Amino acid sequence: MREAFHEQLDAMFGDLASICENVETAVRLATEALLSGDATIAEGVISADAEIDQARERVEDSAFLLLSLQQPVASDLRTVVAALRMVSELERMGDLSVHVAKIARLRVPNLAVPGAVSPIIERMAHVAEEMVRRVSRIIADRDVEAARALVHMDEEMDKLRRTTFAEMLSADWSHGVEAAVDVALLGRYYERIADHAVSVANRVVFVVTGENPRTLEG
Amino acid sequence: MREAFHEQLDAMFGDLASICENVETAVRLATEALLSGDATIAEGVISADAEIDQARERVEDSAFLLLSLQQPVASDLRTVVAALRMVSELERMGDLSVHVAKIARLRVPNLAVPGAVSPIIERMAHVAEEMVRRVSRIIADRDVEAARALVHMDEEMDKLRRTTFAEMLSADWSHGVEAAVDVALLGRYYERIADHAVSVANRVVFVVTGENPRTLEG
Repeated sequence: MREAFHEQLDAMFGDLASICENVETAVRLATEALLSGDATIAEGVISADAEIDQARERVEDSAFLLLSLQQPVASDLRTVVAALRMVSELERMGDLSVHVAKIARLRVPNLAVPGAVSPIIERMAHVAEEMVRRVSRIIADRDVEAARALVHMDEEMDKLRRTTFAEMLSADWSHGVEAAVDVALLGRYYERIADHAVSVANRVVFVVTGENPRTLEG
Repeated sequence: MREAFHEQLDAMFGDLASICENVETAVRLATEALLSGDATIAEGVISADAEIDQARERVEDSAFLLLSLQQPVASDLRTVVAALRMVSELERMGDLSVHVAKIARLRVPNLAVPGAVSPIIERMAHVAEEMVRRVSRIIADRDVEAARALVHMDEEMDKLRRTTFAEMLSADWSHGVEAAVDVALLGRYYERIADHAVSVANRVVFVVTGENPRTLEG
């Protein structure tokens, strides 16, 4: 019974890691659509989000079944509840990628991001994607050390976001209001993806060590 | 035992309703700070958020205790898990109010929102605040009908958000990039508060009827 429970729990974490890989793909392709103005890629991200939603439902159903049938306590209970939270954050990260793809689609055949700020947005996107990529492995390997290291990448994200504001509000900004609105919202979406990545990683720390992720969230 | 369980569950929903009232206050005061440029009110919202965070921790701890000690199944289990999700959304709504207050504080002694769009932002804020106010009662009374009615208010919110974009991107916009960036982000924050309000209300529907909120979220 206990062994079956832990097998099911492992399977659930396998599912979480695989959802996280889908999120990574969503972030990567949404960025590609954004920087290339490719409507087909943007559409692909938007329609693929349904798969992430369905995978989320499957994890939720398994977690519920585990809680009902196995009645876990202590650290096992903590792990199942953490899995429920992780899957809802991963789904949210997928939604945020869809928001990026929708901004890309809205501006086709033009590019939403003006050339001058393109390198900053590209860097933000890269940091977000890399964070999500690491989170897949953090979940799969329950890697506490890698989870803790993620905070530094999030600091870079915050710095990049401040840079976008400085660019937009400088006297040199010549790209108008529409581009500024797009860049402000894109910055927000990538920043939120990074926040959720840190939060999911913190939940892995919690599952492994019992250390409360609240204190890590600041 | 069962009766004690349901008493504890009722107490937990009482706590959720009271957290929701604190969120309502946060939304109201953040808006007041925004529209009046009052730094003291903005600071008040920012510092009061710690109370919401602490209240969240208390609800999480109670939910955990209930799961561990009472081992609920079926609809009781569903209710406790729903409460865990509701409290994390309520906390998020508090965070979003803090974001509004921070934009207000950033622009003091000026106003972040130019007079011309002020009525739209004021209306968005009013809709958000009213939705949160209703959600407190929806939680307290487990009012399924009121929960379902919330969707219509959310539709107004979406319409208002589109109006802000139309204003900012029209040729008449004379308020510059900074105001546009502020309005774009403020619109996003109020919209997210409304989204979470609908989501919390849907969870009440789920708790009472067993009807899955996923299908309501669209």
